[in-house]
Amino acid sequence: MTSTVTPDTQTPPGLSPVAVALRASEILRIAAEIRQLVAAGHRIYNFTVGDFDPRQFRIPAMLEEETAAALRAGETNYPPSPGLPLLRQAVAAYYARELGIDVGAENVLVTSGTRPGVYGAYRVLVGPGERVVYGVPSWNNNYYVHLVGARGHAVEFGPEESFLPSASKLAPALKDARLLVLNSPLNPCGTAFTAEVLGSIADLVLEENSRRSAGEGPLYLLYDQVYWPITFAGVRHVNPVSLRPDIAPYTVMVDGISKAFAATGLRVGWVVGPREVVVAMDGILQHVGTWAPRAEQVAVAKFLQAPEAVAQYRAWLNEAVEARLTAMFDRLMALRARGFPIDAIRPVGAIYLSAKIDILGRRHRGAPLRSVEEVRRWLLAEAGLGVVPFSAFGSSDRPWWRLSAGAVSVDDIEAAMDALAAALERLGDV
Amino acid sequence: MTSTVTPDTQTPPGLSPVAVALRASEILRIAAEIRQLVAAGHRIYNFTVGDFDPRQFRIPAMLEEETAAALRAGETNYPPSPGLPLLRQAVAAYYARELGIDVGAENVLVTSGTRPGVYGAYRVLVGPGERVVYGVPSWNNNYYVHLVGARGHAVEFGPEESFLPSASKLAPALKDARLLVLNSPLNPCGTAFTAEVLGSIADLVLEENSRRSAGEGPLYLLYDQVYWPITFAGVRHVNPVSLRPDIAPYTVMVDGISKAFAATGLRVGWVVGPREVVVAMDGILQHVGTWAPRAEQVAVAKFLQAPEAVAQYRAWLNEAVEARLTAMFDRLMALRARGFPIDAIRPVGAIYLSAKIDILGRRHRGAPLRSVEEVRRWLLAEAGLGVVPFSAFGSSDRPWWRLSAGAVSVDDIEAAMDALAAALERLGDV
Repeated sequence: MTSTVTPDTQTPPGLSPVAVALRASEILRIAAEIRQLVAAGHRIYNFTVGDFDPRQFRIPAMLEEETAAALRAGETNYPPSPGLPLLRQAVAAYYARELGIDVGAENVLVTSGTRPGVYGAYRVLVGPGERVVYGVPSWNNNYYVHLVGARGHAVEFGPEESFLPSASKLAPALKDARLLVLNSPLNPCGTAFTAEVLGSIADLVLEENSRRSAGEGPLYLLYDQVYWPITFAGVRHVNPVSLRPDIAPYTVMVDGISKAFAATGLRVGWVVGPREVVVAMDGILQHVGTWAPRAEQVAVAKFLQAPEAVAQYRAWLNEAVEARLTAMFDRLMALRARGFPIDAIRPVGAIYLSAKIDILGRRHRGAPLRSVEEVRRWLLAEAGLGVVPFSAFGSSDRPWWRLSAGAVSVDDIEAAMDALAAALERLGDV
Repeated sequence: MTSTVTPDTQTPPGLSPVAVALRASEILRIAAEIRQLVAAGHRIYNFTVGDFDPRQFRIPAMLEEETAAALRAGETNYPPSPGLPLLRQAVAAYYARELGIDVGAENVLVTSGTRPGVYGAYRVLVGPGERVVYGVPSWNNNYYVHLVGARGHAVEFGPEESFLPSASKLAPALKDARLLVLNSPLNPCGTAFTAEVLGSIADLVLEENSRRSAGEGPLYLLYDQVYWPITFAGVRHVNPVSLRPDIAPYTVMVDGISKAFAATGLRVGWVVGPREVVVAMDGILQHVGTWAPRAEQVAVAKFLQAPEAVAQYRAWLNEAVEARLTAMFDRLMALRARGFPIDAIRPVGAIYLSAKIDILGRRHRGAPLRSVEEVRRWLLAEAGLGVVPFSAFGSSDRPWWRLSAGAVSVDDIEAAMDALAAALERLGDV
């Protein structure tokens, strides 16, 4: 399956080809629609956006206080373009302490959130026409492939494998590819790699690179671990570099505070990778202007170096997220038990749950729901349920949806599931 | 003159062509070198970086307090990708009030500082191989041209025209160009367009566009006015849209709080442009991840809507900058009167002064200074004077240098000029 990106609206002549052909993020489009509905007074259960509602999830108190203190202390001018040395050292220490990998502060590049790391890695590692391999469903790889003029090679995974990439299906795609993109815990599913599966994929990368001549350049691995601290149900995050140290020269990790500390609005992320890649990313991103705000950099550096505060917050966050995802899962399985065309995969991390709501073709006021988009609108209108279809994550047409736990309480979830059940009751047969 | 960008160091095979060919910013490289010297205990008069030392220039107290208050109020989650509506409206009102132009909040795109606006405009407006016209000396256009694979067409201006573009020299370059980039007040010179000159350049753009067929797409104007509130000596900033309202459909303005409020580290900027351009820029930049931090967005919106606080800060800032630039200018002219090979252009805005220090070929310990880089290192070593050569702004080899007022006190300036005079005394003849 090759990814395609098509224009949303008529763009005028004179804009660049990349601008004309790019469609804005479907997830953000849905989020904007829901913001408008909420502003207009509609009761919406917003399961759509990979974000946190601050009424449900506050950032760590220390992060808030230290940011204000840094502003008061005059930390208001440019940070160095790769980030404050203080923060780069703190990230290296954090990874050594928490992930058991020794990355070196000089290989840490600070960015304004995690997206610039993804964009920068694509921009630096992938030339026009080169091939990028990624699993679907996954987050936004199709857009990044388009932005750098690469060829996307999406390998599709299904519910039978918890939507997670496997070595056996990836193997045929890796020959002569430039970049493999992996993400765990997985957006949009909340599932996570085991050491065995990730290790076997890492072995594929090592094998491919041992096959290549020096002049060909390596197959790189972009490992998006922005949700890594959020795991539960006895699962621990795994990292390719700790599993296979030999893969470090080919591995770029992206991460940040956005999800780990419910701090999407503070815009602090980082990249960890081979020195020459990090230097090249800095060379490009410094012109793009993706520097994290300085006071927040100071505050994050201090917070990361307070292991107890980090551990306490993490325990609280994981419990709060797990409670919500478990409530969703239990209620969905109860609906399934009642005979509704519903299924779900038990999440073990991130803030997402993948749910099957299989009502394409069913009748609303006599007319069949004819597309995923019609089903999405029906869920929004009839149950007040805002969800994102897996098609937004590159999957082929499947009746699967992403539900995010970041903007809802357990009570919201109960009410939403009641509303969903009532709406499903009203729905006519195929 | 065509811009070229060449690699700094060996990059490994496998990195993308754009990464391999890109040299990191010379200005940032010099700034990093000076940070190291200062950290090592050297006394350096740092005139290099377009930034503010918070010990000299604090951000407005209201901006500091409102950012902290916004964090306490839970303004910690994602802003909408084009920016908080509150801030987009505040920018539109600010422009109406201060610049007399009615832009509409829907045409404002908030970015993480001003650089993403420049990058986004290049990315959206300029296709590969298309031609971008800009004056030199100017800031970083060569890098942006390279990043989007465009052809740079630099038109050189000299001290006889205060290094400012003129209609007569630009005119032959505009036929079939895609983008004209202008900046006023000018980095690196601190000079500024008059209404007459900018109006006549705007007329050229309008003429070129009236000549073009619809299918060709227009010639766009990127107007970098990030320094606009900083003017003195009776000069007022001029804007092409207020001078020639017909140019609005072709004009993208970039701006932000970085220089206006000495807040380079807060990472809040904005773009104002034609609706379809702003939408296309949002479509790309949302994937790049150049969102300004949310609490800072809230604070800037509140501050911009406090006209008295803005006016007070502006008056203080302009006086403080003018005092420094005037001290530099007066001391340089005194050195000139003493017979040193020095000249300067009186600045009227921004935080820069352009100084001629014409000592190429002069002898240090018997050996001639053979290149601009050798002169730069001599100034740093012998006078502790950190300055940026005009070659870093695209000018051909000229003995001109940018001096920034943002990180120095008037006393620092006096001491630096004493040190410069003493060093020049020690220098041998050609």
